[in-house]
Parts: sequence; C-alpha cells; structure tokens
Amino acid sequence: MQQIIPTRHLFGPGPCNPYAEATAALGLPLLGHLDPDFIARMDRTCEGLRTLWGTKNTRTLPLSATGSAGMEAAFVNTINPGDVAVIAVNGLFGERMCEVASRVGAEVVRVDHEYGTPVDAERVAAAHPNPKVIAAVHAETSTGVVSDIAALGAIKGDALLIVDAVTSIGGMPIEADAWGIDVGYAGTQKCLGVAPGMAPFTISDRAFERRVQKPQSWYLDLGLLGGYATTGSSGGQRTYHHTAPVAMVASLEAGIERVLAEGIEAVTARHQNAGAALQKGLQEMGLELFAAEGHRLPQLTTVKVPEGVDSAAVRSYLLKNYGVEIGGGVGQYAATVWRIGLMGPNANMDSVALILASLKDAIANS
Amino acid sequence: MQQIIPTRHLFGPGPCNPYAEATAALGLPLLGHLDPDFIARMDRTCEGLRTLWGTKNTRTLPLSATGSAGMEAAFVNTINPGDVAVIAVNGLFGERMCEVASRVGAEVVRVDHEYGTPVDAERVAAAHPNPKVIAAVHAETSTGVVSDIAALGAIKGDALLIVDAVTSIGGMPIEADAWGIDVGYAGTQKCLGVAPGMAPFTISDRAFERRVQKPQSWYLDLGLLGGYATTGSSGGQRTYHHTAPVAMVASLEAGIERVLAEGIEAVTARHQNAGAALQKGLQEMGLELFAAEGHRLPQLTTVKVPEGVDSAAVRSYLLKNYGVEIGGGVGQYAATVWRIGLMGPNANMDSVALILASLKDAIANS
Repeated sequence: MQQIIPTRHLFGPGPCNPYAEATAALGLPLLGHLDPDFIARMDRTCEGLRTLWGTKNTRTLPLSATGSAGMEAAFVNTINPGDVAVIAVNGLFGERMCEVASRVGAEVVRVDHEYGTPVDAERVAAAHPNPKVIAAVHAETSTGVVSDIAALGAIKGDALLIVDAVTSIGGMPIEADAWGIDVGYAGTQKCLGVAPGMAPFTISDRAFERRVQKPQSWYLDLGLLGGYATTGSSGGQRTYHHTAPVAMVASLEAGIERVLAEGIEAVTARHQNAGAALQKGLQEMGLELFAAEGHRLPQLTTVKVPEGVDSAAVRSYLLKNYGVEIGGGVGQYAATVWRIGLMGPNANMDSVALILASLKDAIANS
Repeated sequence: MQQIIPTRHLFGPGPCNPYAEATAALGLPLLGHLDPDFIARMDRTCEGLRTLWGTKNTRTLPLSATGSAGMEAAFVNTINPGDVAVIAVNGLFGERMCEVASRVGAEVVRVDHEYGTPVDAERVAAAHPNPKVIAAVHAETSTGVVSDIAALGAIKGDALLIVDAVTSIGGMPIEADAWGIDVGYAGTQKCLGVAPGMAPFTISDRAFERRVQKPQSWYLDLGLLGGYATTGSSGGQRTYHHTAPVAMVASLEAGIERVLAEGIEAVTARHQNAGAALQKGLQEMGLELFAAEGHRLPQLTTVKVPEGVDSAAVRSYLLKNYGVEIGGGVGQYAATVWRIGLMGPNANMDSVALILASLKDAIANS
C-alpha cells in the first residue's frame, strides 16, 4: 500500500527542514569518491567550511558521520590515556563530552554549571593547573544557552581548546582562529540547513602536531583522514581511506553555498530576528523562558512548560494538528521544558507566527 | 558560474549508480529522528535488513556512518584488550580488519592468503585453539573473490564469527543465521544501490551477551544503540542516542524495498548474469581475470592490466570519453589490476556492452 508522506515543520532541536538547495543536491547524479569532479567538490566544501569556522586550518573537513562522531573524533585524536581534560558542563552535550573523553582514557575534570547558564571561563581556568585539553559547548542545544568561547581561548594557556559548534555553525558567527579554538566539530542538521549525516570538523596545526599518534579509532584517525579530504589547498595527493558519503557531501556543499550566498551577517540577523520575535511572543503568552537572560540562543529557545500542562500531550497535539514538531527537554527537564528551534530556512517570521498560534491552541486544547 | 553536472557510469568498486527509488527518497520531506513516522520507517528498514541478512537478530540496524565504521563497530563491541582475533586476510579489507582490531587491543592472529584466492576455513581453524573472534570478508572488494562463510561457521567453535558483507549484501544471498554469523556489517553503496553513508549491521544475541560492556567508542556502542533503533519487534521504548541521518535512512529503506520487490533470487540472478557476461567478454578480448576461477564475484570483476598498458591512462580515457569509471587495483596490484563493478542497477547487459566497447577502445587508443 502506498505510504502517505507526512510533511513536517521541524521546529525541534534538529534536524530542521533543510534548505531547498541542499535537498535538490541530494538528487544530483552520484560521483565516485575518487572522481576528479568529486575531489573538486570536496575542496569547495572544505573551503566553505573554513569560512564558516572562521579559520585558515588546512585540516578542515566534513567527517563521514553525525555530529556526535565529531565529538568522538575530537577526543580520540587529542587524548592519550591519563591526559587531563577539563570539561565545562552546562547541559547534555557537556555531559556527553565527559562520557566520550573518559572512554578514551581521559582523567576528566568536570566543571559543572547550572543548566540554563553559560560557561564561566574563570571557573574553568581554576579547575586544573595544566590540562591537556579544555572543552566546552558553544551553543548548548539542551538548554538554549550560548557561551563565550573567546573567553575560554583567553585562559586556555597551553591546553588545546575543543569546542562543540553543532548548533551554532551556519547560524551565528564562529571565529575559530581569533577565539583560539584548536579542535571544533559541528553538525549539518541545525543552522546549516542540511540533513544530518556529516560532522564539519576543524583542527589547528598546533593540535594536529600534538595529536594521538595511533588513535583507538581507525575510522576517525585524523592522521589518516588528512590524505583523504584536506590536501586541497596544499595540492597534495589524495589517498583512499574510506568511501565518502558522496551524496551528503553534495548536499553539504549546496547548503554551505546557500548560506554564504545570503552572507553570514544576513543569516545571523535572520536567526536573531526570528529568535527574538519568538522569545518575545512566548513571554507575551505568559510563558517563562528557561535560559538565562543575556545568554539565550536565538536559534534554539527553551521555555518552561506551564504548571498543570502535559508536555507530551502538547507536542503530540502540535504534530497531529499542525505538523509542527517541537522538542521536549532533556534529563531532569524532560517534562518541564520545551525546546523550539528556528534554524536554517525555518529562521523566519512565518515559522514564528505558526509556532505561536499553534502552541497557544495546543496549550488550551490538548 | 554555473557548474556543469557530470553524469557518470559508476562501474568501479563502489559507489555504483543508485537505484532511482533510492535517489528519489533522498528528496522526501525530512522527518525528525524521533518522529513516530520516522520510527516506523526505521522499523521497516531494520525489518528489510533482517531479510537481506537472512537473520532473526533483533539487533539489526543501519549504523550512522559508512561501511568502515561498521567494521570498527564489530571489533569495538566484541574485543576486550588482549582478546585473540583470528583474521583471515585475502585482500585489503582483511588487512584493514587487522589494523582496526589491533587498535582496540586485540591480539591479532593473521591467516594470510594469496590475494585472489578465497579464505581456507581449515587454515583458519588451525590458527588458534580458542580465539574470542574469527573474522573474514565475504566478498573481497579488493580482489573480486567470494569466500565460503558457512564453512567458517562450521569451524568457529566457541568463537564469535565476524563477517564483512559490504560488497555482497543486496547482490547475493546471505544467510547469517544458517551460516553462523555472529556479527555482520555491510555498506549501502554497493549492490544495495544506495548512496554511501550508512552501515547495515547485525549482531546475534549470543554475541550481544558477550559484548564489551563499555566500548572505547560511545558513538558505536551497541549497548546504547539498542535503545535507538532495534526495539521495534519487541515494542520497547526508543531512547535518544544520536541524531540519525534521516535522509539516508529514507533512501536506504527505498533501496531495500526496491531490491525486495524484485526479489533476492531475481536480483542475484541479474548480478550473476551480468558478471558472467562481463567476465566472458573480457576473456574473449584476450584479457586475463585476476580472481581464482570458481571463486569470482559476479558483482566485482578483477582483471589484469595487459602488459605495456598504462592502467591510469586507460581509466582517465574511459572517464573523459565515456563517463565510465572503473577502479584500479589496491596495494601491490594498484597499477596491474582493474576492478570493474556491476552492482545494483548497473548489473545489466547495457552496462556490460558499454564496458566492453569502451574498454576495448581505451586499451587501443589511450
């Protein structure tokens, strides 16, 4: 029997609806992963990523797995057993960093922050005199909070600074070189407006020189991946490592081109305006925002579920009646916080209007 | 400037041209990874994979990375440091297994075979009295050889049998349960006729019970992934692990449906007929096949580059004049063997005719 294809407004924490250009590129004729035309495409993709990351790092490439694998690549390539990793935790993805780092043998020093608040660089600096790495999340998808990464770069000393930019890339400026990011990873399915499946990644020469020589993971070994995707600017020879997800790379290239054609400044403004309008509208409805004022992400809004309202029932009502997806909270906030994303092509006033109208109905009638 | 989009006949070792159904599904409206409709899609995908694997294993799912990550998942979840892994090596992917297994701390016992010959189960059995795992490649993409996996199942004893089915799945029958496969991994971009980006995976209850409790890799930890994709048949609750590559899953579902609609028997016959016609035609041209007779894969043919012919020049000529991609050899055979794939929708007589005609021209005129 023919399946009916549902159409969704993806206003959760990601994936968002992709840019039309990114979807169209998925349908392009497939190229072999060693085809000269594919290699040129990969070069353009890496170059576009350098612009989005704000870096000149040669080793800037999309890893062939989702953002969480980017996190794993960051630690697997920098942590030898016993190395100290100071990890700022102010949400789920900081928690995950601790788990991933401990599995590769790090001595993890957690710096816990209240969920909903940003990372405090001074507390991070005071946590250990000489860590191998310091790690933090730029835009915490679980709490809707942005942290000041430049402040961490300023206090990192000799440590390598690892940054999760999954929810910031393509939606707000990132200046990896200026801020002192040594290793950055991201995802495609948030503000870049591309389907999930790849992890935009960048690593500085300084971090690469101090990398783990033979990481536990062959798949994510940057020493091997270097020959596969990042020799474009140096004109080096490509070597086969694994079969790149060629359709996803084509889509990522198209998404990046789309973002850069609009311009990072304009894209940032669009995310900011949509997020501000949403947050204003939610407060006018009498709802309370979760993230600390002054540190709220425009692209991912967290809002408290009103007393007596069933979070899951509201979400089901939205999905059923409006095709609108929003997210629940995480951990202890699973049932008491909603997460509403306005990312990529969804960062627009029509999305804001739809969310506010449908959520009002859902709260009253679900 | 508008890029001209090249169209290729992907007759290399993979990716092949995808089935039209698989490409079309990439353009479907995106679903959230926790959407009930996506979960139903994932359930159908896992169920289809069970059919293709020939298994009832509950834990049968597509991993969110390419086939090589499937290999890594197989070892990361079964090998504790010091465990003995007997690995049959008769090509590049057997070699890679040794590298991946050693990185997770295995004591690797290699059983080397001449490239171009199949795995000898008796030699594997004699290699070690009591290994934790035995591993082999079903269809060696690097040499064009098929090995008898049931024979390995018969001698495995208490060991877990790990099998690479990257190039066999969707093109020839696999009977994981009947053959005694405990852990199997595959790719999407070969006979399944789907773009690269996921690793169809299956693990038996027996292997799962003996799994590594806290693998080095969080991303590939099957204990955590179990809650994410494979509880369909048991009706259990889904838990968030990572964001699934939802577009790729839709495409994989469509590719599997396409293969099962034609029927495994018919698809197998189509691959066999095309491969046999190609191999006959190549020999009639005076070329010599590389893989041992009686053990040749129909879907991936290896052929020796004639004396005095420049392998790379022929491949460039084919690409430039015919849009035809074929592969070079690997390792010491890089310049002396060509690899010609007839996989997925390319396993047809029109592909055979095009390859034979264009290769004849290329050898004479490149």
